[in-house]
Amino acid sequence: MEDHRSLFEQEIRKLKVPVAKVFLKNGKIVPAVFAKSSEVIGTSDKDAVNAQFPKTVAQTENKILKATGNLEKKITGKRVAVLFSGGPAAGGHNVVVGLKKILGDGNTLFGVKNGPKGLLEGTLFEITDEMVKEIVNTGGFDFLGSDRTKIKTDEQFNAVKETVKKYNLSAIVVIGGDDSNTNAAILAELLYDMGVQVIGVPKTIDGDLQIGSYLPISFGFDTATKIYAELVGNILQDTPSSRKYWHFVKLMGRAASHVALEVALQTRPAITIISEEVKEKNMSLGTLVQSIADVIAKRASKGINHGVVVVPEGLIEFIPEMMKLIAELNEVLAHYEVDLQNMHTMDEKKDFIYKKLPAELAKLMASLPDEFENMLLLDRDSHGNLQVSQIPTERLLIIMVEERLNEMKRHEDEVRHLNMTAEEYARFQKFKFATNSHFFGYEGRCGAPTLFDAAYTLNLGLAAGSLILDGHTGYIVAVTDLQKGGNVLALPLTGLLNIERRHGKDEMVIKKALVETNSPTFLFFASRRAVWAEKDHFTSPGPRQLWGPSAKQLPVSVALNQGYDSLAFDLGEEVQVY
Amino acid sequence: MEDHRSLFEQEIRKLKVPVAKVFLKNGKIVPAVFAKSSEVIGTSDKDAVNAQFPKTVAQTENKILKATGNLEKKITGKRVAVLFSGGPAAGGHNVVVGLKKILGDGNTLFGVKNGPKGLLEGTLFEITDEMVKEIVNTGGFDFLGSDRTKIKTDEQFNAVKETVKKYNLSAIVVIGGDDSNTNAAILAELLYDMGVQVIGVPKTIDGDLQIGSYLPISFGFDTATKIYAELVGNILQDTPSSRKYWHFVKLMGRAASHVALEVALQTRPAITIISEEVKEKNMSLGTLVQSIADVIAKRASKGINHGVVVVPEGLIEFIPEMMKLIAELNEVLAHYEVDLQNMHTMDEKKDFIYKKLPAELAKLMASLPDEFENMLLLDRDSHGNLQVSQIPTERLLIIMVEERLNEMKRHEDEVRHLNMTAEEYARFQKFKFATNSHFFGYEGRCGAPTLFDAAYTLNLGLAAGSLILDGHTGYIVAVTDLQKGGNVLALPLTGLLNIERRHGKDEMVIKKALVETNSPTFLFFASRRAVWAEKDHFTSPGPRQLWGPSAKQLPVSVALNQGYDSLAFDLGEEVQVY
Repeated sequence: MEDHRSLFEQEIRKLKVPVAKVFLKNGKIVPAVFAKSSEVIGTSDKDAVNAQFPKTVAQTENKILKATGNLEKKITGKRVAVLFSGGPAAGGHNVVVGLKKILGDGNTLFGVKNGPKGLLEGTLFEITDEMVKEIVNTGGFDFLGSDRTKIKTDEQFNAVKETVKKYNLSAIVVIGGDDSNTNAAILAELLYDMGVQVIGVPKTIDGDLQIGSYLPISFGFDTATKIYAELVGNILQDTPSSRKYWHFVKLMGRAASHVALEVALQTRPAITIISEEVKEKNMSLGTLVQSIADVIAKRASKGINHGVVVVPEGLIEFIPEMMKLIAELNEVLAHYEVDLQNMHTMDEKKDFIYKKLPAELAKLMASLPDEFENMLLLDRDSHGNLQVSQIPTERLLIIMVEERLNEMKRHEDEVRHLNMTAEEYARFQKFKFATNSHFFGYEGRCGAPTLFDAAYTLNLGLAAGSLILDGHTGYIVAVTDLQKGGNVLALPLTGLLNIERRHGKDEMVIKKALVETNSPTFLFFASRRAVWAEKDHFTSPGPRQLWGPSAKQLPVSVALNQGYDSLAFDLGEEVQVY
Repeated sequence: MEDHRSLFEQEIRKLKVPVAKVFLKNGKIVPAVFAKSSEVIGTSDKDAVNAQFPKTVAQTENKILKATGNLEKKITGKRVAVLFSGGPAAGGHNVVVGLKKILGDGNTLFGVKNGPKGLLEGTLFEITDEMVKEIVNTGGFDFLGSDRTKIKTDEQFNAVKETVKKYNLSAIVVIGGDDSNTNAAILAELLYDMGVQVIGVPKTIDGDLQIGSYLPISFGFDTATKIYAELVGNILQDTPSSRKYWHFVKLMGRAASHVALEVALQTRPAITIISEEVKEKNMSLGTLVQSIADVIAKRASKGINHGVVVVPEGLIEFIPEMMKLIAELNEVLAHYEVDLQNMHTMDEKKDFIYKKLPAELAKLMASLPDEFENMLLLDRDSHGNLQVSQIPTERLLIIMVEERLNEMKRHEDEVRHLNMTAEEYARFQKFKFATNSHFFGYEGRCGAPTLFDAAYTLNLGLAAGSLILDGHTGYIVAVTDLQKGGNVLALPLTGLLNIERRHGKDEMVIKKALVETNSPTFLFFASRRAVWAEKDHFTSPGPRQLWGPSAKQLPVSVALNQGYDSLAFDLGEEVQVY
């Protein structure tokens, strides 16, 4: 009991981790060598991208690199800096472990403290073997720290160059999400002439950094969704035990609904809302509320007074009428930023903003509960986006669903479409809608990584280090064939870039991968949800296991989208890395 | 992916579970036999109790029974009903499994649907081997369902007798917490003349049903605290990763702070509030807020802008000035129940109540934020208690701590007691107090049981069944010596009863076991918290493991209070029960 670490924390550091074949030689970890394939990737904005990134594109030709075997040449003297960028995700530490291992004694690995800001400020330190032994297989980004600074001004570019010179860096590895990898693409171009290589590593619990069969998933998604799925599973198990609550559970994921969809597949709640579908079907808030109330009423009419509703964090922004309102608010808030800063009361600001909105949107805005209205006017984040995590969508839905249910109880006409018998309607009328709400977010970012995330990130780190030793720049690493030993790729970062409007300006960014309603995962979900809605069919993945028979499992959505026949993964031979 | 159950759920059903020696004969599970010891238990109200429970006390003499070996006599024809009562807790299903196993083919086990209410309504069904094979080692109470009906009126007593007659029951097993076991004591006396045995099983995630070395802990506590501790551990790991938040985490536990204390020992956050200490030290809300603000300011002055504050759910009721207010409100609300029911607006009710309060309490009430004031006036639960889980204590603390910190930033006098240097004070003044709040409760009640809870409950079930076969009534089962193979006891329920004032009336109840500030656990915590407050010393138990090296661990507080030298438990030989 006196030891600083729990037994679990001591034991995970001893776990062996699977390593892909290209990184192994006689059971030892060695760098891989890459070959340019003929496969080109790019977006519809590729001409504009190519014009803005001439140096990297000339070198990469936007072609995918494939690891083909061991790198035979011994490379030494590289000085590599690694940094975390954006919100933490489980497995980040193992990327650093993989990098350190592959660079070995002949090269130097520096850690950048506190994210991109640390790169500007030059707060680097040398990472030793002793340090990585302490972090192997652990959760969190605390070894380096992270932040959300975007590198885009000339002043910032100069600061990066100063840091590069100060530490005589050969390469920079950026571990981050879509915005951070956009940063990496920009840095690769900026530092090209200095001979500095830049490599990105795909991180985000949101799962919205993925590219079909080339990048099945970002790291951290598996751990986060397994943490949330256990909690949702526990709550589902609670509902028929205590038999009186509907739980509304909001899950982190600012834009895409991958997290909600994955958790739904792992747990099978009565109702799961997928933002992308809401948008595609052009659903109004009222229609959405009705669809939830229908399931609740139908279950109540059969005597089932409990259930779970899973709500993706970013939902509001995907309801078309709300999107119009928010887009208009974003423009107004950005355009009149100075004017608004000079106003002191919320009422003053509101009056001002209402007058700038088109009439129908001002009306929609006014129709929302006060609490909610104020939320929509909250300050934006540094990317000019609405801070949706501040909005209690789950509570808004509860209020509106309750109103709807009361209407349905009062007027039999309102349930005509549900075809209830008289007895069923009477049962529904007696039903008491008791609710609880939850938001799971921070809980899922820094837990100990699943075996999948631990293995995936170690291999991503080995890949990033190998790319550097093999002389490449401007790539993001990827591992595919997750059930067949792992196929290591490097995707040209410029091939991922699009033009997007932010803060009222066009910017070059990596587009978030949203849930596609024609994907195998969504179709699987859509084909089953009516059954899950009718009565309890839930299951639970349980707490994620690092040992035992259920330890090696992929996210369900990854297995479905990649066409795998089971959830078991195989990322190579298990190795004691340190 | 098509199977109804996750791989984890399939595999836990195959887990072997340790069984105490008294239940084993040649590797097979058999009933134990009990002998009356010379150890008597009782409370200071024992004379009043003995007078009210003459029949059971005459039989038990309030002496503890000890299981001494296998029951050699073959008993058949018993008809036993089992029910869940109150909130669910992990392991309940294994109590049923243990009962079924020990009763075997020669006796009949009935499940009572939906708790005590089901006993009144007579909704029983026969439990088969096939059914228990489906629930072994699983979480939740959904196999039977539960409710919170208290059996106390003559009408209810008659209904129970009707059910007993209808099913020709020989015995009833009540799986529940303090109130439910009070029910069990009452039923044991009531049904004594009918020859019906009643046995209680100690359940509650709150951990407040424990009796020194006789009953180390109730079941469900270990699973719930390990679930919460993982989440708190994840959040702790997040704080130095993202480096910007203070998280206020409220943990379930209506009265005692056992859950908060256990989670603190497993994770070591900067601040953990223990309600019982607050009460003992007669702390005001203002003093408590100052003590939190002090730790936050001190860390900020050293450049640490993050941390976690653990808050027990029932805190408010332990702040003496608030207790006075709430006690007075409870009396007023109970006394003027009818008057208040006839009032329609909150304002009307408030006005009425304010006039009934002593002046100083009315003043305290008025000093609270409006939102909070309304909460205190909310309807009471069926036991006449304030629904503290409805009160966002964590949010109240955030608001008040923020105000305090702002004062401290404005006036250097306010931090004089913290001995900051000028540089440190300047750093604190720049510190931005960004917060998140969480409430973990329902997530912890129905997760898959830890190996400890799975084993503990199976043995409790075996013990309850053995007591019935061995002809006893009016006991609650217990297992001690958790590190030495398990020692099986039965404690006379009447020995646990006290007189407590509820709804303005004296009632016979089992007193909740609160955290004692002179217990080994509290002293251990108290001796370390200053170090944890100063800078990060956190750890995490990780997700609870059912396999591997960290799977067999007791709650830290149980190990400390029982004087064990490690967390490892030993409850006997591992057996495949079904």
